[in-house]
Amino acid sequence: MAHDGQAPSRDTEDGIRLAGILELTGAALGPVDALLDRATQALRDLVVEDGRPSGARIEAEQTAAHGLAWLATYARALRQMHDWAQRLETSGTFAETEALILQIAFGEYLDQIAGGLPMSQGEILRPADLGLPSDAVRDLDIGASATLRAHGNTQAARTRLVELMQEHAANVTVGNPGLDDEMEMVREQFRRFTLDRVAPHAHAWHLKDQLIPMDVIEEMAEMGVFGLTIPEEFGGFGLSKTAMCVVSEELSRGYIGVGSLGTRSEIAAELILGGGTEAQKSHWLPRIASAETLPTAVFTEPNTGSDLGSLRTRATRNGEDWAITGNKTWITHAARTHLMTLLARTDPETTDYRGLSMFLAEKTPGSDDAPFPDDGISGGEIEVLGYRGMKEYELAFDGFRVNGDSLLGGAEGQGFKQLMQTFESARIQTAARAVGVAQSALDVTMQYAKDRKQFGKPLIAFPRVSGKLAMMAVEIMVARQLTYDAAREKDAGERCDLEAGMAKLLGARVAWAAADNGLQVHGGNGFALEYEISRLLCDARILNIFEGAAEIQAQVIARRLLA
Amino acid sequence: MAHDGQAPSRDTEDGIRLAGILELTGAALGPVDALLDRATQALRDLVVEDGRPSGARIEAEQTAAHGLAWLATYARALRQMHDWAQRLETSGTFAETEALILQIAFGEYLDQIAGGLPMSQGEILRPADLGLPSDAVRDLDIGASATLRAHGNTQAARTRLVELMQEHAANVTVGNPGLDDEMEMVREQFRRFTLDRVAPHAHAWHLKDQLIPMDVIEEMAEMGVFGLTIPEEFGGFGLSKTAMCVVSEELSRGYIGVGSLGTRSEIAAELILGGGTEAQKSHWLPRIASAETLPTAVFTEPNTGSDLGSLRTRATRNGEDWAITGNKTWITHAARTHLMTLLARTDPETTDYRGLSMFLAEKTPGSDDAPFPDDGISGGEIEVLGYRGMKEYELAFDGFRVNGDSLLGGAEGQGFKQLMQTFESARIQTAARAVGVAQSALDVTMQYAKDRKQFGKPLIAFPRVSGKLAMMAVEIMVARQLTYDAAREKDAGERCDLEAGMAKLLGARVAWAAADNGLQVHGGNGFALEYEISRLLCDARILNIFEGAAEIQAQVIARRLLA
Ligand SMILES: Cc1cc2nc3c(=O)[nH]c(=O)nc-3n(C[C@H](O)[C@H](O)[C@H](O)COP(=O)(O)OP(=O)(O)OC[C@H]3O[C@@H](n4cnc5c(N)ncnc54)[C@H](O)[C@@H]3O)c2cc1C
Ligand SMILES: Cc1cc2nc3c(=O)[nH]c(=O)nc-3n(C[C@H](O)[C@H](O)[C@H](O)COP(=O)(O)OP(=O)(O)OC[C@H]3O[C@@H](n4cnc5c(N)ncnc54)[C@H](O)[C@@H]3O)c2cc1C
Ligand SMILES: CC(C)(COP(=O)(O)OP(=O)(O)OC[C@H]1O[C@@H](n2cnc3c(N)ncnc32)[C@H](O)[C@@H]1OP(=O)(O)O)[C@@H](O)C(=O)NCCC(=O)NCCS
Ligand SMILES: CC(C)(COP(=O)(O)OP(=O)(O)OC[C@H]1O[C@@H](n2cnc3c(N)ncnc32)[C@H](O)[C@@H]1OP(=O)(O)O)[C@@H](O)C(=O)NCCC(=O)NCCS
Repeated sequence: MAHDGQAPSRDTEDGIRLAGILELTGAALGPVDALLDRATQALRDLVVEDGRPSGARIEAEQTAAHGLAWLATYARALRQMHDWAQRLETSGTFAETEALILQIAFGEYLDQIAGGLPMSQGEILRPADLGLPSDAVRDLDIGASATLRAHGNTQAARTRLVELMQEHAANVTVGNPGLDDEMEMVREQFRRFTLDRVAPHAHAWHLKDQLIPMDVIEEMAEMGVFGLTIPEEFGGFGLSKTAMCVVSEELSRGYIGVGSLGTRSEIAAELILGGGTEAQKSHWLPRIASAETLPTAVFTEPNTGSDLGSLRTRATRNGEDWAITGNKTWITHAARTHLMTLLARTDPETTDYRGLSMFLAEKTPGSDDAPFPDDGISGGEIEVLGYRGMKEYELAFDGFRVNGDSLLGGAEGQGFKQLMQTFESARIQTAARAVGVAQSALDVTMQYAKDRKQFGKPLIAFPRVSGKLAMMAVEIMVARQLTYDAAREKDAGERCDLEAGMAKLLGARVAWAAADNGLQVHGGNGFALEYEISRLLCDARILNIFEGAAEIQAQVIARRLLA
Repeated sequence: MAHDGQAPSRDTEDGIRLAGILELTGAALGPVDALLDRATQALRDLVVEDGRPSGARIEAEQTAAHGLAWLATYARALRQMHDWAQRLETSGTFAETEALILQIAFGEYLDQIAGGLPMSQGEILRPADLGLPSDAVRDLDIGASATLRAHGNTQAARTRLVELMQEHAANVTVGNPGLDDEMEMVREQFRRFTLDRVAPHAHAWHLKDQLIPMDVIEEMAEMGVFGLTIPEEFGGFGLSKTAMCVVSEELSRGYIGVGSLGTRSEIAAELILGGGTEAQKSHWLPRIASAETLPTAVFTEPNTGSDLGSLRTRATRNGEDWAITGNKTWITHAARTHLMTLLARTDPETTDYRGLSMFLAEKTPGSDDAPFPDDGISGGEIEVLGYRGMKEYELAFDGFRVNGDSLLGGAEGQGFKQLMQTFESARIQTAARAVGVAQSALDVTMQYAKDRKQFGKPLIAFPRVSGKLAMMAVEIMVARQLTYDAAREKDAGERCDLEAGMAKLLGARVAWAAADNGLQVHGGNGFALEYEISRLLCDARILNIFEGAAEIQAQVIARRLLA
């Protein structure tokens, strides 16, 4: 019973906090993993043909397959939360706030696993959808899981967490993210920067649909944003992907547009580091690191979004050089940038990913009057709900000339795999952006709920309001830990499309829910363009779509789980 | 097991459709009602003090109280669905589409009741939150409920429903709404009108933030929109609230702004019919019915939204007349209208609802250049995310003169109760607007999912896409039946703030989920202002906020359940 009106149970220290929480969370991981194994096996039985999972069968069982991806995401998220708490405990920094976040996260996510996990609004996944018998979750009804489910996410726990959030309002984050001192210094540095240089202007940039001013980009460059993870030998800082996450979180907390400036540099740098020639590395990486070169990512086409492998823009040999012809769309920051990472088909005989190659195609930055001054490129702006600040464009290439040495790694037919590896990093960065956007929604909503009074009280005094705030804070920490986990995997040099996909999948949902609930707390004012939460709702909505839509992310995860 | 990969069970006719569905749904109602009784009792035990439910205790137990409201809403919705199906069965019109809608609705909602009911994204209600022991939902694990939960909402059922939706795309609604022929004729008439006169322009009106053209309003007036439920003796059509629902649905399906024009007339007419003097009735009602008089509803203030009873705008006697002083905000269609239904404090000694009175205050319609030409009123536009077409304003009254005979019913201190009774009707109408907006999201998303191809197939061929479409269609029918139920109660002359609140509460969530999932199916294009779904997302978001925010609606329902 998650209900608080009863006498304090013997499971809790004070009617609120669970006694021995780390033992409980540790013990709850086993049954979840067992359930995941069982669900994986059940799905495998359905989709394996001739000893291998069949793409067609996975598609036919898509609800189950994507459901499995979500279940695995929750299983990993809970493990990350436990490990995080354990590390804090070891270092003596596991305090009441963190304990409440942990118990609420476990209580809620275990309940969702057992009773219904919202893949989206209106698509709730239950064990039966995974082909599991109704007693499959019996182990979640007993022992540590039962205790966590009964007493983890109570109204009293949420209320207490929000009290602590008010007491510790000066802290940069709700709860200790569990990184080292260096990372906390980085976080504080970027928090100060965004409070000073970004947050006061972000809303006006959005409302006026303006490009982020170049001087902000230059200051970011000075702070090393664009060379953060580029090795020092190429002019970067050689920092970890975890550092990239912290920076992306804090920049996106100021404005998603600012937090997303680095995404394109990250994609370009990763492509070049992973697949470029030595000449390409030494030419481009220092320029990208210093932001002398701003890149843009040119992949999607009008008829080709999720199914990127089938794209049709052609690159044909033209003497030493290449000529690009075809239509691209949804190209962020296309006009003002200097370098396109451009995916095109070099083998006209193919229709799938095998004939694609990646180009590092130079272009001339445009101005408002002449956004695409080069011969062979024309383009127009796409007006959008949110995620402004860099603008989106459709582009038409008509024999656009690209230098012969622009082919990434000098090798044809490698473009798609080069990009997929890069997407790992981009999706981790996107997950961190999602955490930042969610945090921003929490920031403005906390403030509003403290200031606005109805029925003689600040809104924050009402359980339905504080409950929303608490769930935002808890899910932000869950998404954050899952993101750091993916970053660590990437840093360790592992293929991590699984982990990156999970972080992106969950982060996008968390940000969307935070913005939605944040807006609700604002009441009518949330609907006014004047209030930042109205922008945050729009900004948050993109996260489930780009860098691989939620359904595609689930597909990637499911395939890897079944492989 | 809701899974479809298994052999067809003996419970289904074809591996998809449940045999004896009406017996099953009929049998499933009992356990749900029993659960509701038990939950009501459990809450009553917690909140009753000195024999009466205490407001403070209800607030302290807000999660449980609002959860109870949601549970009761689901219980009533399921009963309405069963009754609807039963009526169709009796009339021989219960076909495969309706059967699938029914079984999916029961499967899904029973599962949500047992395992987690999303009050909002991030606030999932479970039986334990209601203070119920963990075995409280045991009866939903057996018998008809178990069958419905196991086989009701399967991927196969959703896929089949969407096949039928494509086959019957020419039908005005997905499934037979179960009204009589007259209502179906009304529906078709208004469907044609919106397809012809509204739908082609709505998106441009939104993007340009324009007022809906007067000629559209005039045509609507000729069709009787503004006098639909006004008695014939006062120049109206004397139709039922059900007719109002059908008209509001179809108009809102074209554009929420158009479907909302009538709301203000409905409020004004209800106020006057319920509380007006004979002179007020005979003066105003014919004018409202013909749209010669367009009303605006002037209640909310900058510091007073949900807690309307505490508003501060003053009305003071000034000889025969009244003088209004104070600030109002969020006043829809304030500029262009002729009549304000204005709630103000006439008893300066009070601070709660008892000192409030309702005025029928004439004003001069404004123009773009002079939106508020009258002495004593000034105002400014509030820019908003969606729900455009009438524009929103903040108003400042400074001794604005109102005729002595403008006091509704000639009686002071009655304003709040007069308004609350009126809100019943307005909330029913709002629920119907929500159904229309959800239907509109389904309309555009069906079309998009058929047209757009990825991976060599139309999107609609993917289970995650068709599943979203199916759930939209199902929940639209549920919200619709709950709305018709409230309308029937109102027509029967019963106090129905309970039923109206339920219809509004559920309808708003359904519309929001439909718009959200509809946008997701559009992928990147959903984020482009060019596509209608981007507007529908914005339009849908208001429904959870105005006419009583979701939390306030739950509060109203809970109080009535406990009373
Ligand atoms: C604001 C914004 C910025 C962007 N920036 C860039 C950029 O800089 N560079 C760039 O190259 N691209 C960019 N994109 C494009 C983005 O990556 C694509 O929008 C995204 O990959 C989805 O593709 P799509 O829009 O074509 O949707 P579609 O592929 O048409 O998908 C539509 C819907 O169908 C679902 N779906 C598709 N296939 C399946 C399936 N097999 N099973 C189940 N469901 C399926 C999707 O999940 C989605 O919900 C941007 C997009 C936006 C909106
Ligand atoms: C587009 C638009 C059009 C409108 N049109 C009109 C109109 O024509 N005429 C008019 O008079 N008004 C109108 N309104 C105002 C509307 O009715 C109010 O916005 C609404 O009643 C909510 O009030 P609020 O905005 O002050 O929110 P608040 O009352 O400040 O509420 C903010 C949040 O706190 C929650 N909350 C408040 N009290 C409690 C509590 N006790 N327990 C738990 N949660 C609580 C609310 O549910 C909400 O989520 C309109 C509003 C909008 C946005
Ligand atoms: C849908 C999607 C996941 C892949 O679809 P697909 O065409 O079925 O491709 P596959 O998964 O079969 O992968 C093709 C090849 O790349 C390889 N590959 C995929 N991801 C990889 C990774 N992270 N690392 C290394 N190799 C990878 C596969 O192993 C496969 O190689 P193989 O044929 O030698 O085994 C991909 O198109 C995608 O991510 N779409 C979303 C697009 C997007 O995010 N756009 C954002 C633009 S900003
Ligand atoms: C919150 C809210 C529900 C009522 O709050 P409240 O101040 O606590 O008022 P109560 O519920 O105690 O009601 C006050 C009185 O009105 C009566 N009343 C309320 N609803 C009624 C109804 N539908 N029919 C008849 N009487 C009603 C109550 O019985 C009570 O009378 P009593 O004191 O004689 O018993 C109300 O303020 C509300 O609906 N707020 C939302 C505002 C809104 O929707 N604005 C939209 C503007 S477009």
